[in-house]
Amino acid sequence: MRIVIDAMGSDNHPAADVAGAVMAAHTFGDTIILVGDEARIEAELAQHKTADLSLEVKHASQVITMTDKPGDASRTKKDSSMHVGLNLVKEGAADAFVSAGNTGGILAVATLHTLRRIRGVQRPALGVVFPTPTRPMLIDNGANADCKPDYLLQFAVMGSLYVSRVLGIDNPRIGLISNGEEEGKGNSLIQESLPLLQASGLNFVGNIEPKEFLQGAADVGVTDGFTGNIMLKTAEAIASTMSTMIRDALMANPLTIVGGLLARSAFKKVRQQLNPDEVGGAPLLGVRGPVIVGHGRSNAYAIQQAVKQARLMVENDVVAAIEEGLRSA
Amino acid sequence: MRIVIDAMGSDNHPAADVAGAVMAAHTFGDTIILVGDEARIEAELAQHKTADLSLEVKHASQVITMTDKPGDASRTKKDSSMHVGLNLVKEGAADAFVSAGNTGGILAVATLHTLRRIRGVQRPALGVVFPTPTRPMLIDNGANADCKPDYLLQFAVMGSLYVSRVLGIDNPRIGLISNGEEEGKGNSLIQESLPLLQASGLNFVGNIEPKEFLQGAADVGVTDGFTGNIMLKTAEAIASTMSTMIRDALMANPLTIVGGLLARSAFKKVRQQLNPDEVGGAPLLGVRGPVIVGHGRSNAYAIQQAVKQARLMVENDVVAAIEEGLRSA
Repeated sequence: MRIVIDAMGSDNHPAADVAGAVMAAHTFGDTIILVGDEARIEAELAQHKTADLSLEVKHASQVITMTDKPGDASRTKKDSSMHVGLNLVKEGAADAFVSAGNTGGILAVATLHTLRRIRGVQRPALGVVFPTPTRPMLIDNGANADCKPDYLLQFAVMGSLYVSRVLGIDNPRIGLISNGEEEGKGNSLIQESLPLLQASGLNFVGNIEPKEFLQGAADVGVTDGFTGNIMLKTAEAIASTMSTMIRDALMANPLTIVGGLLARSAFKKVRQQLNPDEVGGAPLLGVRGPVIVGHGRSNAYAIQQAVKQARLMVENDVVAAIEEGLRSA
Repeated sequence: MRIVIDAMGSDNHPAADVAGAVMAAHTFGDTIILVGDEARIEAELAQHKTADLSLEVKHASQVITMTDKPGDASRTKKDSSMHVGLNLVKEGAADAFVSAGNTGGILAVATLHTLRRIRGVQRPALGVVFPTPTRPMLIDNGANADCKPDYLLQFAVMGSLYVSRVLGIDNPRIGLISNGEEEGKGNSLIQESLPLLQASGLNFVGNIEPKEFLQGAADVGVTDGFTGNIMLKTAEAIASTMSTMIRDALMANPLTIVGGLLARSAFKKVRQQLNPDEVGGAPLLGVRGPVIVGHGRSNAYAIQQAVKQARLMVENDVVAAIEEGLRSA
């Protein structure tokens, strides 16, 4: 397999991205194509043992930064690492694209300037698998701040196909994220989307609240990108706040300090389970090629895990499944 | 002070509500007026020592249940405990109203049939103080699933006055909850609300993400009721999920079991801090009288804490402050 990594993506680029590329090439034995500033990439590669690995470098003269406006930058920086990398996938010279860069930038370059949308897709969407025990997927997680009921229906179809293909879940249960389970709850978007989902032929379980979503009442939670992004960020913020509160409470007296030390492996286990690096990134669904969007703060391991996810999308032919699924929807 | 408690409110009514009334009368020395089915309330009161307390009972023949549709029930059940209790406040026979009942029902009865809105208020809103270390307030937390920018501006004014009066925070910092801090982030509601808040004369700190909200970047987070409710419910769900994950991880081996036992007081402390019962309830802001809405699963202690909050609203004359604040806004 040939996977493109945007070497200029992460906050700590190109060091983290190149280290992740090396790690992924080593772990999976794939060809990794690093796209970006050739001199800087080569300088980073020189820090690693790469003799037995299949690593290629493709120069791109521009970078879409975290502070660039996606619409403008995707139009004006046509030789960005995102354009060059995504075009490799478009032309069939690579199988998938991974970037930990500006999410809006990746979206704009993929949707408007390179891969473009799968026929019939109104809005591509970001899925994200929550690293909680039941591992539910939330879609959309930030690609589309304003949504229409039709979009949510397509998110449901794409999310269902993704978890069925990649996570191997048969006939996945789809829930509509709402502030209450009863029909009539939710804002107007939810109320108008409900009948579309009920009539969709999907395994639709109705409105679900965040608690039910996390407890495993659905395999896919469908939401607009604004609400989804707020949910994800609230979840991350509460997990971090609680960790700090527990650490502070453990320092209160000698007994709890000792208890905390003895229980250290348990805390470490929970931290690892909840670590978004394990998940690696969010699949961008609805464009004509496998794309994984990583956290800006990705380290090498997170980049490797994003490559792992990209490989699963390729192996399980998720893009073709969505093309097929939307034709018959 | 004379506080009305809806005896038919909580999931465990009237037992929890009556026990909370007794506790509050004892703790605060106020007169508590229990409204609801007189016979059932008297039967509950007989279980408690009430000799030295100032407790009154006011009969109401109907109950708006958790499954009632708020609009219908508020029109047809005119002798509900909510109608009777809120009318006592309206007529000046009581100072504040507390209920752990159907939130939509309380809203509808207060706004449309009894107290009614403060002049100039477009939509009353529910505030909620997050029980995290910095104790920020989120408004709206579920009263208005669909909002306009004007509403969010008023939520900001009301939230600011509440935390300034009740929590004693001078010139509170107001943030607009969004999926990114930069201008241009957010959905169309956020983008249209931003200039209104910037021009409001409030101490507005701009868009804030959930993480910054929880870390204390603002005293009040402003949001529509759908997003606010999803945020609150996601926070509760993650806190609960993490507790379960930690408990399970601690059971893994003898060392961590012992560690967990030694550290028990620390976990208890964190659980207490995060306990929504401490907060007691959500103030309904924008109606002509102090109203506190409790969790359906309130126990006696939570009811007492809701009464405590109601007392603070009365003592600090929050309703008059909002009347005044919206006239000059």
